[in-house]
Amino acid sequence: MSADLVAPHAERGDFETVGAVLKQRFGERFSTAQAVREQHGHTTSWIKNQPPQGVVFVETTEDVSDVVAICADHNVPIIPYGTGTSLEGHVNAPEGGVSLDMSRMNRVLTVNAEDLDCVVEPGVTRKQLNDYLRDTGLFFPIDPGADASLGGMAATRASGTNAVRYGTMRDNIINLTAVLPDGRILKTGNRARKSSAGYDLARLLIGSEGTLGIITELTLKLQGIPQAISGGVCPFPTIEDACNAVILTIQYGIPVARIEFLDTLQVKACNAYSNLQLSEQPTLFLEFHGSDAGVAEQAEMFGEIANECNGGAFVWTAHAEERTKLWQARHDAYWASIGLRPGCEGISTDVCVPISRLAECVTETFRDIEEMGFVAPMVGHAGDGNFHVLVLVDMDDADEVARASTFVSQLNRRAIAMDGTCTGEHGIGQGKMPYLEAEIGHGVDLIRQIKAAIDPQNIMNPGKIVPHGD
Amino acid sequence: MSADLVAPHAERGDFETVGAVLKQRFGERFSTAQAVREQHGHTTSWIKNQPPQGVVFVETTEDVSDVVAICADHNVPIIPYGTGTSLEGHVNAPEGGVSLDMSRMNRVLTVNAEDLDCVVEPGVTRKQLNDYLRDTGLFFPIDPGADASLGGMAATRASGTNAVRYGTMRDNIINLTAVLPDGRILKTGNRARKSSAGYDLARLLIGSEGTLGIITELTLKLQGIPQAISGGVCPFPTIEDACNAVILTIQYGIPVARIEFLDTLQVKACNAYSNLQLSEQPTLFLEFHGSDAGVAEQAEMFGEIANECNGGAFVWTAHAEERTKLWQARHDAYWASIGLRPGCEGISTDVCVPISRLAECVTETFRDIEEMGFVAPMVGHAGDGNFHVLVLVDMDDADEVARASTFVSQLNRRAIAMDGTCTGEHGIGQGKMPYLEAEIGHGVDLIRQIKAAIDPQNIMNPGKIVPHGD
Repeated sequence: MSADLVAPHAERGDFETVGAVLKQRFGERFSTAQAVREQHGHTTSWIKNQPPQGVVFVETTEDVSDVVAICADHNVPIIPYGTGTSLEGHVNAPEGGVSLDMSRMNRVLTVNAEDLDCVVEPGVTRKQLNDYLRDTGLFFPIDPGADASLGGMAATRASGTNAVRYGTMRDNIINLTAVLPDGRILKTGNRARKSSAGYDLARLLIGSEGTLGIITELTLKLQGIPQAISGGVCPFPTIEDACNAVILTIQYGIPVARIEFLDTLQVKACNAYSNLQLSEQPTLFLEFHGSDAGVAEQAEMFGEIANECNGGAFVWTAHAEERTKLWQARHDAYWASIGLRPGCEGISTDVCVPISRLAECVTETFRDIEEMGFVAPMVGHAGDGNFHVLVLVDMDDADEVARASTFVSQLNRRAIAMDGTCTGEHGIGQGKMPYLEAEIGHGVDLIRQIKAAIDPQNIMNPGKIVPHGD
Repeated sequence: MSADLVAPHAERGDFETVGAVLKQRFGERFSTAQAVREQHGHTTSWIKNQPPQGVVFVETTEDVSDVVAICADHNVPIIPYGTGTSLEGHVNAPEGGVSLDMSRMNRVLTVNAEDLDCVVEPGVTRKQLNDYLRDTGLFFPIDPGADASLGGMAATRASGTNAVRYGTMRDNIINLTAVLPDGRILKTGNRARKSSAGYDLARLLIGSEGTLGIITELTLKLQGIPQAISGGVCPFPTIEDACNAVILTIQYGIPVARIEFLDTLQVKACNAYSNLQLSEQPTLFLEFHGSDAGVAEQAEMFGEIANECNGGAFVWTAHAEERTKLWQARHDAYWASIGLRPGCEGISTDVCVPISRLAECVTETFRDIEEMGFVAPMVGHAGDGNFHVLVLVDMDDADEVARASTFVSQLNRRAIAMDGTCTGEHGIGQGKMPYLEAEIGHGVDLIRQIKAAIDPQNIMNPGKIVPHGD
């Protein structure tokens, strides 16, 4: 459960020397100031801060290549940093090293509107891209809660509320450019929508969490903004009823764009944080995309399902502005939850199970929360079978921390036993390392083999995904 | 261009010994009969037959694991064989070794209708699976021309006519079980619809063409059979007009399920082979999936585009039977083409370019065909920017063979220069090896590193994708 599992690598090079070379090459774009270092080890969640020894603010692929080559020469780790919104300690530097701040690589390089694609630098955030695209009639659908960088979203195989319809980062990246551990620049392919040209190197990098290379360019699929969008809110008497409505919606093949679950406590938190007046009971947030007729048809079909599952009346928000407010509240759920118990840290969970097991998994988890007496709101991309419990923990109470660890461990193992995963979209990072072997068995060895082949010095974001060596 | 590029590996073990062990273990399920060997080196296309030294008809994952362990002990190659319908020499045994015939591993293990997924063995063919699913209201959309095995389709990252809407094998496989080169059995994950649990090992195996492991189970996404399906045929005066209609259809975001292009010669071939009466001019085959209203809406929108692009009248086939006949003809296009010039071999091409470059790429290629005087029908998954030219070549005419090689090389390099790929769905195999570096640069080295790390003896389908070593 803790970052301490990662033993520092024995033979790292001298950071003094690396720092001097970086200072010479990057001047004021290289910093070793304490505040800057700590900010770049900030982990959003309960995982403790392990700051890097220095930070370089890179501006080009060549900058990245230079830093990597310098660090490789001296066996010093490199940790890429986007917006620092990861929840599993991805930006931590358990073995020291250099944080690569990608935020200045924030140019949209090309929009090929006719091909429904674009090429961006990794520091572009999802909101920045969609603002940029506003006049093109196109949008990029992947939306984790935070306004994360697209490079970070690729590195963690992120998704969000639209994944049930549009897929995850895995499905929405055509190709990548990355700097490999030896400083070489790799372009995984061109802009063709599909390819069978050898190993899927783009997919290998997506979700590799900076452990194989540093992403410096992304070619992304774009979607046409639908002719019609309608959204709504539907309350249910019980968690199980809400889950069953989700399950039926998916099984009936309604092409819902978003179908999000919030438990009563989460609704309360969102009402308080985002100034909403929702009825405080288990609730689904929905959105439909399509033609005018198509959207109406989907809403009608969902209405029948909700009715069958004891759902309350829909509250539809016809106005774009109201819809935006609703979804901003959904995206701020994390911060709303943290506000429920000031001074506490949040332990985020991220299990994902086959949809047929969703109600069972949610219900058993809710029983654990009640039995263990946690303040732990629940929110989820229910259409994917993915839900988050944020356990709010007083980190000074050792007993509470231990009980929270037990809860999280139970939840992760329950999801794996239900043919699911301990992480639907947050990644392994440091926090989920203890569960990976239970989930993929020998796959852990295979990951280790690949990592060792591509990064024999283990300089790329060491101490994430799997421990190095045997 | 030729399989002779692959130099046999120097230190392969003694096949006599391996044969004896396999005979003892598998009895009559192991064969070294000449006819059986040649059938398993059959390459469908012009690439010459390089038969394996023996064939094992495996029935279980454990069988596969045993064969792999035996072959690993003696440094003897293993070549997986599904239905032998690959077009790039994937089943050839340029360094000898054992062909693993997967056709008896043809059980559908589980259908989880409520989760829209199923688990199958690799020898199940796409038609067999859809027959099996008939009463469930579900179907598996990926449909290469041949009734290929799902294991082979995964190994080559295949697609087909439905990819424009449903994606390729990459998008429709949830997870895989595979036997690794040391005989260990790897399960890449569970049945959750999405996961961020470490490297995407399933995607690494998909498209690895048997060079990293032998796929022994596949967990596949299924789709609900749409409420309404309508299909039609639309002729155009020129290739360019037809391509432009495709481009506009995609750019307008019409969620077309199939949009296939056939040039005049291909229409002639299909008329003859499949007993159709189509007007002999550049033609699009289309299919729309959705609700009754949705399908009508899509067809109307396409009608406007076709009209704008000088398209002729639609011929709609309302009856399922007629539709099936049309699509069977499309799937038989390869055999129809081969029939245009009996006694000749077909050189299949498979370029894929961004949709904005499709008309230009097709037009330049058509000019090459005319100038070089080839019999070479053209057919394509135009909605993906992917099209095939089948060059019919008299293999006894060295000059013609040389000219065909030049044509293919020019086409592949043209597609790459247009930001596309030399292979949209057939894979690299032996035939496309000379083009991979032009397309992915350093990626070739990365593939080689991964291959060497996972299969240090290079026993898994050697001589495919990239040459071994440096």
